Amino acid sequence: MTTITGEMLIGYRSRRGTGPSLVAFNPTTGVEISEPSFGSGTTDDVNEACALANDAFDRYRALSLDTRAMFLERIADGLLGVGDALIQRAHEESGLPKARLEDERGRTIGQLKLFAQVVRSGQWLDATLDSPLPDRKPLPRSDLRMQKIPLGPVAVFGASNFPLAFSVAGGDTASALAAGCPVVVKAHQAHLGTSELVGRVIQKVAREMELPEGVFSLVLGAGNSVGQSLVSHPAIKAVGFTGSQAGGTALMRVAAARLEPIPVYAEMSSINPVFLLPSALAQRNESIARGFVDSLVLGAGQFCTNPGLVIAVAGEDLTRFIDAAKEAITAKPAQTMLTAGIHNAYQEGEKRLADTVGVQLEARGVTPTGATQAQAALFVTSAETLLTNHALEDEVFGPLSTVVSCKEEAQMLEVASHLAGQLTATLQYDAEDCMLARQLVSQLERKVGRILVNGFPTGVEVSHAMVHGGPFPATSDSRTTSVGTAAIDRFLRPVCYQDFPAELLPAAIADGNPLDIWRSIDGELTRY
Amino acid sequence: MTTITGEMLIGYRSRRGTGPSLVAFNPTTGVEISEPSFGSGTTDDVNEACALANDAFDRYRALSLDTRAMFLERIADGLLGVGDALIQRAHEESGLPKARLEDERGRTIGQLKLFAQVVRSGQWLDATLDSPLPDRKPLPRSDLRMQKIPLGPVAVFGASNFPLAFSVAGGDTASALAAGCPVVVKAHQAHLGTSELVGRVIQKVAREMELPEGVFSLVLGAGNSVGQSLVSHPAIKAVGFTGSQAGGTALMRVAAARLEPIPVYAEMSSINPVFLLPSALAQRNESIARGFVDSLVLGAGQFCTNPGLVIAVAGEDLTRFIDAAKEAITAKPAQTMLTAGIHNAYQEGEKRLADTVGVQLEARGVTPTGATQAQAALFVTSAETLLTNHALEDEVFGPLSTVVSCKEEAQMLEVASHLAGQLTATLQYDAEDCMLARQLVSQLERKVGRILVNGFPTGVEVSHAMVHGGPFPATSDSRTTSVGTAAIDRFLRPVCYQDFPAELLPAAIADGNPLDIWRSIDGELTRY
Repeated sequence: MTTITGEMLIGYRSRRGTGPSLVAFNPTTGVEISEPSFGSGTTDDVNEACALANDAFDRYRALSLDTRAMFLERIADGLLGVGDALIQRAHEESGLPKARLEDERGRTIGQLKLFAQVVRSGQWLDATLDSPLPDRKPLPRSDLRMQKIPLGPVAVFGASNFPLAFSVAGGDTASALAAGCPVVVKAHQAHLGTSELVGRVIQKVAREMELPEGVFSLVLGAGNSVGQSLVSHPAIKAVGFTGSQAGGTALMRVAAARLEPIPVYAEMSSINPVFLLPSALAQRNESIARGFVDSLVLGAGQFCTNPGLVIAVAGEDLTRFIDAAKEAITAKPAQTMLTAGIHNAYQEGEKRLADTVGVQLEARGVTPTGATQAQAALFVTSAETLLTNHALEDEVFGPLSTVVSCKEEAQMLEVASHLAGQLTATLQYDAEDCMLARQLVSQLERKVGRILVNGFPTGVEVSHAMVHGGPFPATSDSRTTSVGTAAIDRFLRPVCYQDFPAELLPAAIADGNPLDIWRSIDGELTRY
Repeated sequence: MTTITGEMLIGYRSRRGTGPSLVAFNPTTGVEISEPSFGSGTTDDVNEACALANDAFDRYRALSLDTRAMFLERIADGLLGVGDALIQRAHEESGLPKARLEDERGRTIGQLKLFAQVVRSGQWLDATLDSPLPDRKPLPRSDLRMQKIPLGPVAVFGASNFPLAFSVAGGDTASALAAGCPVVVKAHQAHLGTSELVGRVIQKVAREMELPEGVFSLVLGAGNSVGQSLVSHPAIKAVGFTGSQAGGTALMRVAAARLEPIPVYAEMSSINPVFLLPSALAQRNESIARGFVDSLVLGAGQFCTNPGLVIAVAGEDLTRFIDAAKEAITAKPAQTMLTAGIHNAYQEGEKRLADTVGVQLEARGVTPTGATQAQAALFVTSAETLLTNHALEDEVFGPLSTVVSCKEEAQMLEVASHLAGQLTATLQYDAEDCMLARQLVSQLERKVGRILVNGFPTGVEVSHAMVHGGPFPATSDSRTTSVGTAAIDRFLRPVCYQDFPAELLPAAIADGNPLDIWRSIDGELTRY
């Protein structure tokens, strides 16, 4: 189980791709992990994986909810079964500390098990029944019943920054499998070995449970062509992606250009503004500054929810906040980034900001000692500069943030209304700030997926009420979330069954409620 | 209230557009309705309507659910208040019989009132609360609460074939207003006067209720530029459209090319296959044939759910079915179509089919006496021909259908799996057909939004379980419905509120459940 071969997993087979070889890379040492190399796939491999997924779909979605839930639970158990080999490999490939990866494995397992509960609850089926009205005038009403069914095979592109929780067996895969969709994953090049280890767990569980072959495949690709073939394939009915705005919008274009356009759920780009309200800033400015810097440098700043913008009214309190943040940041050690490419982009982004008129560098973290280490950075600018220079809102992925000083409270509102879509916004708030906070919340609701009060945006709970989403460019589809149980809704669509005889009705909407789920009958939620 | 001026309705003002003049047309007489002419709008008008909608959005969505519901109810009452003038004008502009339009008005009013109930129920808010876990290890869990909020201003393009129920105050407008979204309607050129009459009702109610100006506007356009400006406007956050595949896909492209792409809900094209299962065909072939032909010619065949394809196994039973259908169709009078353009397209579609190798014309209805009257038509072809000629699946909007004869039951399944996305599929079924029906249902679930047993697809109930949707090209987004209460979900997105103090929490997710709605607390539905 812990041997890494460099093969792809197509249904129940393992096969070395005949495309260009890929090698894993250790960002901490800067050295290739030369054995094994990974054989990238071709369009033929994609076609085969997609054809298997298509064949598997009807049988997979027809399994009992309990079987589907057990599949997720056994994947979770299997991940734990790989033991330290998984953590070790993920650490080598990502540079992320082992303790963090152990937490991430816990989150991944918890996520799979939570989706198993969701599957069993059957609430996602949205079972809805309208009673027939045979005597209605002028026309009788038919017997109408609705349930949600899965969309079909889903393509998943893992995230660089979560090699476990948002990769091969991560949130997109878990929610798609929970919905009843077969999954074809394209492994992220930054953690090829980790991907294989996790993929083999899923493949093994599927085979042991005798699930239809093709419910899961893992393909490898050098460059973009394998990913584009995957998104273009007629059998694929939705796409889950976490990554850059350039990557996400490229997939959106491919999906929109298909003969049958399909939904793309791309989680892309966010700078997660933090608003320091006047009373909170006056009362707690140093403690907020320390909390902010801790959030900023967590995981080398490589979180989608990293606080990249801080907005407050200029004055003595903001000066004290900046001084405290400078002091905190100056002491923060440099940290290894996930890949050399991400590190280069970070350095370029930092340089671009430093070279921008009206933007001042305030502080840097400890000088790096490794080639791919990120040095934290804090910049300051004015609201006028931000409002006239859209480039300042571009995400710089890494431990970098810009403090925006406003002339007055009204300008904080102006900044809020000016921002593009974000995953999160945060208010540092005291009760005296209530009036301003209400106005800000009203603005921010239109811009973000999650609003926090007196917290920091890093740390995304996997739960029922979580929204990890938001208007473009934070994501490609603000109507959904990629974290939390509501993520299952992304892969479902409603079907109505009119005047079906009992012998043809799906169990979810059959008489007598055989699945024992919540159903809406004539507009009222019931358990009958 | 019953005077038609030819003006646009921009917020609370009425203004004649300065673009090219448009005239209404009576398809029954073939004569223009020259007074008044309608002044089409410009991009400036669109910009003004959208800016007002944007300004109105926060105030409109902040209104109580009861006020929002009353808005819908008073629009319904207002439509009835226009009296026969509305029916008369819609009849003149559409050629549809008055009795049908009275029914359609009833449906439109019922739809608005049903959405008022939906608004008050608050279930669409999807209120979801996760309790904080302050003692959890390794990290505490925050207080997380989620509700759905409206997307923002919505652009609505009415349908030619439902001048009331799917136009200015139709399903898209009702569901968007119910969701809390201001609406900018582009009037359909085929019923300009009807649009103005209905638009003035909405405008009057909004003003009387002192709703924020811009919650509703009605613009007119010659050609496509006004519609494209509307979909391109940054304030518009979603689009509702019912019409042709060419029109819908054009709007999809405009929406995808925006700086911020937005969802388009386009209901476009469907040929609504009817499967005649062997036992049902043997037992009831003549009565099925009569029911089929009645459904086919209803409203001159101008329904999205018109049964344009009939699939059965060849043999004596199918021959009897075809004979009975021929007899029924031959007696069906020609009927006036909605517009000269639709009539031309119908004639071209019929000619294209008649000229297709492998397709035979079996019967025509009574010869037309008016220039825009449609003559019903029945064609026959083989499954082999259908499976090799995709053009046979193109919708011909009007009273035309093609019977597809299959060699065996397996070929019926092959046809089902070959079909593109549809709004509906129908099974004519007896209990002896159960095995085949189960296989067909499994195939058809993947293709359609609604499956009927022993009915005909025309007639779409406005209810909770209705799905008027389906995979592309039936619609642009299979995850939704444009008819029924679930249509409200199209215009909503989730927002999560983390660790909010009581004074900032929205009512839907506040402690004590002040709105008295169903809420999910820690994964359990409750009324607390």
